[in-house]
Amino acid sequence: MDLVLHTYWRSSAAWRVRAALALKGLAWDGVPHDLRANAQRAPDYVARNPQALVPALEIDGAVLTQSLAIIEYLEERFPQPPLLPADLLERARVRAFALAVACDIHPVQNLRVLRMLKKRGLDQPAIDEWAREVIESGLAACSRLIEHREGPFCFGAEVTLADIVLIPQMANARRFGARIDYPRLEAVEVAALAHPAFAASRPEVQADADPA
Amino acid sequence: MDLVLHTYWRSSAAWRVRAALALKGLAWDGVPHDLRANAQRAPDYVARNPQALVPALEIDGAVLTQSLAIIEYLEERFPQPPLLPADLLERARVRAFALAVACDIHPVQNLRVLRMLKKRGLDQPAIDEWAREVIESGLAACSRLIEHREGPFCFGAEVTLADIVLIPQMANARRFGARIDYPRLEAVEVAALAHPAFAASRPEVQADADPA
Repeated sequence: MDLVLHTYWRSSAAWRVRAALALKGLAWDGVPHDLRANAQRAPDYVARNPQALVPALEIDGAVLTQSLAIIEYLEERFPQPPLLPADLLERARVRAFALAVACDIHPVQNLRVLRMLKKRGLDQPAIDEWAREVIESGLAACSRLIEHREGPFCFGAEVTLADIVLIPQMANARRFGARIDYPRLEAVEVAALAHPAFAASRPEVQADADPA
Repeated sequence: MDLVLHTYWRSSAAWRVRAALALKGLAWDGVPHDLRANAQRAPDYVARNPQALVPALEIDGAVLTQSLAIIEYLEERFPQPPLLPADLLERARVRAFALAVACDIHPVQNLRVLRMLKKRGLDQPAIDEWAREVIESGLAACSRLIEHREGPFCFGAEVTLADIVLIPQMANARRFGARIDYPRLEAVEVAALAHPAFAASRPEVQADADPA
């Protein structure tokens, strides 16, 4: 089974899938798409992924899109180690946390939206302030979702989908200079970045990363 | 088992959960929150749902949030009738379609973002144009995701999560006057609105709906 991941080193959504693949112990070949140069809009890629977004995962001749759908697929096909708890209510809580980031933070501060704001005449400080507002209010809610739970990870002793989605968003927060004052989230970040799967999947060590 | 749904008649995300509950044949009591009056920001609700969003579903003493996480929970707890296909690749495609709407269209055109744009000085025509741009480009991609598939629903003869997420987004498209020129999506909409579960869950027939 060959796995081909369409990726971009700095894409949060691609990082999620890279982390999930690493956690599942699955090797992959990468096809990089430089989003700054709109490489993901090349016709041969759009033919595979009509949304013209990364990531996409080629597996068994199929092209899977949307990071959370890809991760749910990996979870169903390669159940060990699990990225979701066994208990149904706990699964719902982990998924809700992941969606709180993947729906309500990331798409509202990603490159596409920032470009739309620029087109409407917002200057760079105003655009960065937009991103910070979205990230800060979103992470505040995420922090409250897990403040009463034991660590070291979002939902306890094991890495779950929640951590997979949180860690790239924390990196985005730092990039935009958002105020990060959530001890619980910061502790999760420290624990996760010390985990080999996150260390191997982080942007800076990808083959297509800019030189430091 | 008592189900209490925190809802708002015109919320797309609440409609998704209402449709899923109807498809599963589950009765619920509704607690309406008027988003126009920011009722969802009342402290007693935020204590239950730190994101201060609808919907939320109370079940067995727990409060579940995020529409897609709620629907995945319903699917796991009440498997019949299924809202996801059995085949793993097909499940991934249905989820990807749902996420293409739930991540990449809806949060970028919802009330929160439109209010943020207004705060940045955009006038109403510019705000409506923003919503239309997001919806039109998003629905165009969704249309391509299923253009080669048989109907009447997004992924064949049975209603899936994809239809549940598409139908409220189509209603939003009409509300903003977005160009809808996707025969495959329009055909799905006709089929779905003729289905009792969508008819019963649509905004206009909810107890908290504005008088027509």
